[in-house]
Amino acid sequence: MAYDLFSVDDHIIEHATVWTDRLPSKYHDICPHVVEEDGREYWVWEGTKSPQMGLNAVAGKPQEEWTLEPTRFSDMIPGCYDPAERAKDMAEDGIRASLCFPTLAGFGGRVLNGYDDKTLADLCVRAYNDFHLDEWCAAAPELYVPLIVGQVWDPPLMADEIRRNAAKGARALSFPEGPVSLGLPSLMSEYWDPVWAACTETETVICMHIGSSGELTNPAPDGPFVIPIALGNVNAQAATVTFAMSPVPRKFPTIKLAISEGGIGWVPSALERADRQFIKHRLWAGMDDLLPSEVWRRNVWGCMIDEPIGLTFREHIGVEKIMWECDYPHCDSTWPHSQKQVEELFIAAHVDDDEATAITHGNAEQLFRWELGVGRS
Amino acid sequence: MAYDLFSVDDHIIEHATVWTDRLPSKYHDICPHVVEEDGREYWVWEGTKSPQMGLNAVAGKPQEEWTLEPTRFSDMIPGCYDPAERAKDMAEDGIRASLCFPTLAGFGGRVLNGYDDKTLADLCVRAYNDFHLDEWCAAAPELYVPLIVGQVWDPPLMADEIRRNAAKGARALSFPEGPVSLGLPSLMSEYWDPVWAACTETETVICMHIGSSGELTNPAPDGPFVIPIALGNVNAQAATVTFAMSPVPRKFPTIKLAISEGGIGWVPSALERADRQFIKHRLWAGMDDLLPSEVWRRNVWGCMIDEPIGLTFREHIGVEKIMWECDYPHCDSTWPHSQKQVEELFIAAHVDDDEATAITHGNAEQLFRWELGVGRS
Repeated sequence: MAYDLFSVDDHIIEHATVWTDRLPSKYHDICPHVVEEDGREYWVWEGTKSPQMGLNAVAGKPQEEWTLEPTRFSDMIPGCYDPAERAKDMAEDGIRASLCFPTLAGFGGRVLNGYDDKTLADLCVRAYNDFHLDEWCAAAPELYVPLIVGQVWDPPLMADEIRRNAAKGARALSFPEGPVSLGLPSLMSEYWDPVWAACTETETVICMHIGSSGELTNPAPDGPFVIPIALGNVNAQAATVTFAMSPVPRKFPTIKLAISEGGIGWVPSALERADRQFIKHRLWAGMDDLLPSEVWRRNVWGCMIDEPIGLTFREHIGVEKIMWECDYPHCDSTWPHSQKQVEELFIAAHVDDDEATAITHGNAEQLFRWELGVGRS
Repeated sequence: MAYDLFSVDDHIIEHATVWTDRLPSKYHDICPHVVEEDGREYWVWEGTKSPQMGLNAVAGKPQEEWTLEPTRFSDMIPGCYDPAERAKDMAEDGIRASLCFPTLAGFGGRVLNGYDDKTLADLCVRAYNDFHLDEWCAAAPELYVPLIVGQVWDPPLMADEIRRNAAKGARALSFPEGPVSLGLPSLMSEYWDPVWAACTETETVICMHIGSSGELTNPAPDGPFVIPIALGNVNAQAATVTFAMSPVPRKFPTIKLAISEGGIGWVPSALERADRQFIKHRLWAGMDDLLPSEVWRRNVWGCMIDEPIGLTFREHIGVEKIMWECDYPHCDSTWPHSQKQVEELFIAAHVDDDEATAITHGNAEQLFRWELGVGRS
């Protein structure tokens, strides 16, 4: 393997008994569980019934077989939901560390936040995190970088959960990139301070995955779904600029934010525009002089899959800010051709060896305090 | 003057009697007119009362005096609303052609579309266009490039209005960059075909100004307004990608779209991402093989004010796609220092003489069929 890869964005398809394995039996009818109906499998919880969307688990399938239609566990390759099988898939592709986001729970725990019964939701958050650390990550502790979700409707409770899991080795928290879309306070609010304090104290990296608030930019709802997919980086820019102009990095100057699956090509122009507007408007808006680009350099990291052009802008982004991701088992994934794709990408963007080391794993090792082949550092 | 400047985005503050000068007197109480109340001036129409927002007319004011608060005509410099005074301001800054968008009517005629009485709305659209061509542009016909609005609620009527004004010399149509936000069909719909056909036939350039649909990206409504301003380019990307994946450039291959005040730095990464996703998803989405980047090269133009970094990406944008704008009398405006700012920008981005000619005026002259110092070509 030419490259030692650290993927900062992959996805777990939760197996059918993640929650029923952990919650008391009185909750088994209302916590997430799988039922079979008319030859299809559905996730059911609290009166909601939802199939697994096919595009979420295309790993190993040719493009001709991709579909938005529902899919069954038996239609997926086992690496989607089985951590030992996933570990083999990762090893085959030279991926030596992997940060995995939830699916059913929502990339940032969004779905759990939607539960009417917050006692149930709390149990489901804890069960997901226990599953993640004790079952998923435990299957290959040197490979899987623990990433938890939180009780976003109750920041003090969430802060406790962050500390509980940090003590068990968690390195990152998945947080919705646009909490207002979920009916929650914005980053302007002190509401979140207990969360930021817990993350700062435990060095837990806050990961905002695009789409984790359930909103996409879609100017043509009657058009092909590829339009909002193509506009996915908009969420990354919105989250970054909002964070950079918010009180969060001002009150918590050592806080660390990773923008997940957001790409990097948009960064130079977004920061150039944000700085220019910040300088123009900061007087009447009553703001300080901490530029958005300074917040980026100090507090924010990005990642990319396959952006030969975006990568040529790296001097304006900061090579130390760029991480690589595989996005297994989604349709953007480089798997099982990651080595070849990374090589072609680096040739196209004239990336030298030191830069390649930083992008493929060095930056992620430092950010997540993780040593390839060893695990927690 | 070192540079001959063609500004493809400036703004008219409509004077108080634009509509009452032209509509029959029975409409004077319900068409837009100005009333004075408690020392403030308000625009009033159809039961709506709205002050002029101060940030719309900051030309000539130091940054310390900028405000979101309402402003009066007497607080503005006359160039905001008087075309002869504006012409002097433009001449002082070496600006030899200027494309001016409406304010009260909405950048893309959005406000007129909101009228309950569509007979009144139709009269107001025609009155605005007559004002624009016969009064505003007529004050300096070699300077002002005629830009009209349309009856977006009635595309066949709008097509007639496009043809009527094209015969009088109109060169461009301001069109909302996200019609779905206005309760109108998306670009996927055949609804708009009469408009595209009229624009194609008359070589009328469709200008989509950011914010023309009344929506901004604002992840923190309780935060400083500079956040949605800093995210303004998101609308440009959304409009461009939607257009590029829509039937419009497929059915009307010679159609011309200008993205106004959208900046350019986002273009390379937006096209790289759009192409990649298009290629990945076009099979299941049932799409053809016309890449978004090909549509950009063939049908779309962009513009910028002050983007030294964005401009260094010009090989990925196409120098022939980049136009300059002044944005008078808004707060982004380079006026009255356009010559100096353009010089500094070109030095920072190492722009050579041929490129400077194309960006300052050559590209716009060609797109809008306009010769500097002469007018319509």
